[in-house]
Amino acid sequence: MEKVYATIITIGDELLIGQVVDTNSAWIAQQLNAIGILVKQRISVGDDAREIMDALDKAAAISQAVLITGGLGPTADDITKPTLCAYFGGNLKVDEEALQNVKIIFQKLQRPLIERNLKQAEVPDNCTVIQNARGTAPGMWFEKMGVYFVSMPGVPFEMQGMMTDFVLPALKRSLTLPAVVHRTLLTAGIGESFLAELIQDWEKALPSFIKLAYLPNYGMVRLRLTATGYDKIKIEEATDKAFADLQGLVQDYLVSNVDETIEKKVASLLLRTGKTMSTAESCTGGYMAHLLTRHPGSSAYYLGSVISYDNSVKHDVLQVPEDLLKRGAVSEPVVVQMVRGVLEATGSDYAVAVSGIMGPDGGTGEKPVGTVWMAAGSREDIVTQQMHFRFDRMRNIELTSAHAFNLLRKFLLQENQA
Amino acid sequence: MEKVYATIITIGDELLIGQVVDTNSAWIAQQLNAIGILVKQRISVGDDAREIMDALDKAAAISQAVLITGGLGPTADDITKPTLCAYFGGNLKVDEEALQNVKIIFQKLQRPLIERNLKQAEVPDNCTVIQNARGTAPGMWFEKMGVYFVSMPGVPFEMQGMMTDFVLPALKRSLTLPAVVHRTLLTAGIGESFLAELIQDWEKALPSFIKLAYLPNYGMVRLRLTATGYDKIKIEEATDKAFADLQGLVQDYLVSNVDETIEKKVASLLLRTGKTMSTAESCTGGYMAHLLTRHPGSSAYYLGSVISYDNSVKHDVLQVPEDLLKRGAVSEPVVVQMVRGVLEATGSDYAVAVSGIMGPDGGTGEKPVGTVWMAAGSREDIVTQQMHFRFDRMRNIELTSAHAFNLLRKFLLQENQA
Repeated sequence: MEKVYATIITIGDELLIGQVVDTNSAWIAQQLNAIGILVKQRISVGDDAREIMDALDKAAAISQAVLITGGLGPTADDITKPTLCAYFGGNLKVDEEALQNVKIIFQKLQRPLIERNLKQAEVPDNCTVIQNARGTAPGMWFEKMGVYFVSMPGVPFEMQGMMTDFVLPALKRSLTLPAVVHRTLLTAGIGESFLAELIQDWEKALPSFIKLAYLPNYGMVRLRLTATGYDKIKIEEATDKAFADLQGLVQDYLVSNVDETIEKKVASLLLRTGKTMSTAESCTGGYMAHLLTRHPGSSAYYLGSVISYDNSVKHDVLQVPEDLLKRGAVSEPVVVQMVRGVLEATGSDYAVAVSGIMGPDGGTGEKPVGTVWMAAGSREDIVTQQMHFRFDRMRNIELTSAHAFNLLRKFLLQENQA
Repeated sequence: MEKVYATIITIGDELLIGQVVDTNSAWIAQQLNAIGILVKQRISVGDDAREIMDALDKAAAISQAVLITGGLGPTADDITKPTLCAYFGGNLKVDEEALQNVKIIFQKLQRPLIERNLKQAEVPDNCTVIQNARGTAPGMWFEKMGVYFVSMPGVPFEMQGMMTDFVLPALKRSLTLPAVVHRTLLTAGIGESFLAELIQDWEKALPSFIKLAYLPNYGMVRLRLTATGYDKIKIEEATDKAFADLQGLVQDYLVSNVDETIEKKVASLLLRTGKTMSTAESCTGGYMAHLLTRHPGSSAYYLGSVISYDNSVKHDVLQVPEDLLKRGAVSEPVVVQMVRGVLEATGSDYAVAVSGIMGPDGGTGEKPVGTVWMAAGSREDIVTQQMHFRFDRMRNIELTSAHAFNLLRKFLLQENQA
């Protein structure tokens, strides 16, 4: 089977000084994988013509498609466009459609157009112009010696629009691509090594066209099967069989047999019964609420939260008695009362509450940094759990959130069975 | 002046399928820049021995230091260690200190040790072992033909510990590094192109050892000066002079003259006066609370929040009158009452509130997706602002948060002047 490879080149000094985290590469890689294009390499270079050309040469030598982002802005350090123009031997000329687009955007923003912005409508005369429905800089599609080169803006929202509307369909038309099948499950409560032991015989027996990936994240491990081949029905059947066997092996730890986050799993359990939830957060400081509300449609099951960062808010808004707080806000009775208090305040059916010490300061001998109490439940019943994390502040916040959602998930499952 | 270059190689199939966003490269690049090492290129390759070796060859040809992360885990797909061992011509042997470390970690976790984990203590006999204070996999430091190679785990927290404790000091000792001076300021209310127009004469007159970078983020633009040279006093003086001139040119848009986020700027204004704040969030769903609480020490000025995602919570907890909500929750009177309500609920001195439509659904002809009302103020005075964003859900949430913090910042400045 002939594999089709791509290389992703991200351009910009900001990537080399570390000012910006490159989220584009991961997003592009996911989209390419989904249509059967494997990513061979990802390269980031600065705003330097020679570096860019070297990267293009290398990429063309190992791949059939080269996806480039960045360096198309209006300022002097953005040199991707003239560099590509020189590399492919073209001349810059104004593209009328791109010019209209720039004019319309500035009209909408009620900003005056300056020379610098008009220049954004210039493109090499030997490329196919990719119009930008979400911004001013047009994209470019070149072909050279059987390799396709695509240049897109570095703004994720603009790049994603171009990929979806133009680039992915064009790549599908231009290349002969295999079928790709993904199956993913999420486990909790078992480490990567132990999981590997548990499934090692199954893993060894996998056919060669099915690959397994371990993807540990926030104390949970995601297992992903990827099968590639030209006989779609055959690989789908084989992957489904392998996936069913895998689910049997890990059933004690299985959170979900689709590729979703733990909060989405909680959401789907709530949607099934038409119930609602809220959160009462001390140490996670709104992060759990954010994880729920970043998903469209969350208003169907999520009512709101009380972020009781200060003890006064735990007392005044969540009705946690003062004497409990005096004995220690990171404690089982406090999180139980936080659940009760937020159920009362928001009127939700279920709630989850956390209180802990995320660090780097605030730890004591008895309660070191990483100590967390969490509670989840309803007006009738509440379950609790204590945990100890040993990471930095942000990771402790992420881990606390994931485990608190898992506690609520288990509670909801029990409820649904009862 | 002899420049010192590094290449960052990140290893792992998960990077090429896009399952994981590479945050390590940006962090490492920042740390290297701060000690005067320029990053020439970033390369990501899969768990494939030939790909890894090719990347090592390329990196060694263009840099004096090669920093590698990933592929050191206990599972079969992690092949970085044997590959490096072969590349540098060594043999794997158990490192006693690393072995003790693995044993102690498993004892603490109360998990049984299996063969797979013990193997993590094996290292090539021709490297300097970098002990891992935060995990089981040791790091490795090699030297070949005057190039330093460092291999670290892909877990950010573990990699960061090794960098800080061992790698950065060792690179400083081993290489002759120039002084590097950074000066950064944050602007709001002016686009990148207009900023470029405003400062173009100043930019043209910059000495060649000072570089300017435009870093647009969430509707604000950060400007960063980076000066490099061996005469630290001279470059510092020149950079401070250029930075002072720049601040004068952009003074109408200046948010901060240090490299900080908008919420940190709000925090520093509050800390100066010993006052406190809270947030009342509808459409941002806890993201503003999270931005505040991800920073250590936020309890000094932040009391808590009410996330009133559902109108019932706006009414019951924030006392927004029902008739106002009926006329439309995304409105000026509603956000004003949300500020009043959360001031009352939390007892904070200041508060900021937002209500809007983040998309993709929920927009109407009158109030399209991206419409946001925000309010900030105290018990005495409240200011409001309406905004329109045109991006995807997550970016609209980020932009709303940044602009709402900016509204509060301007309010606090006015208060402090009064």
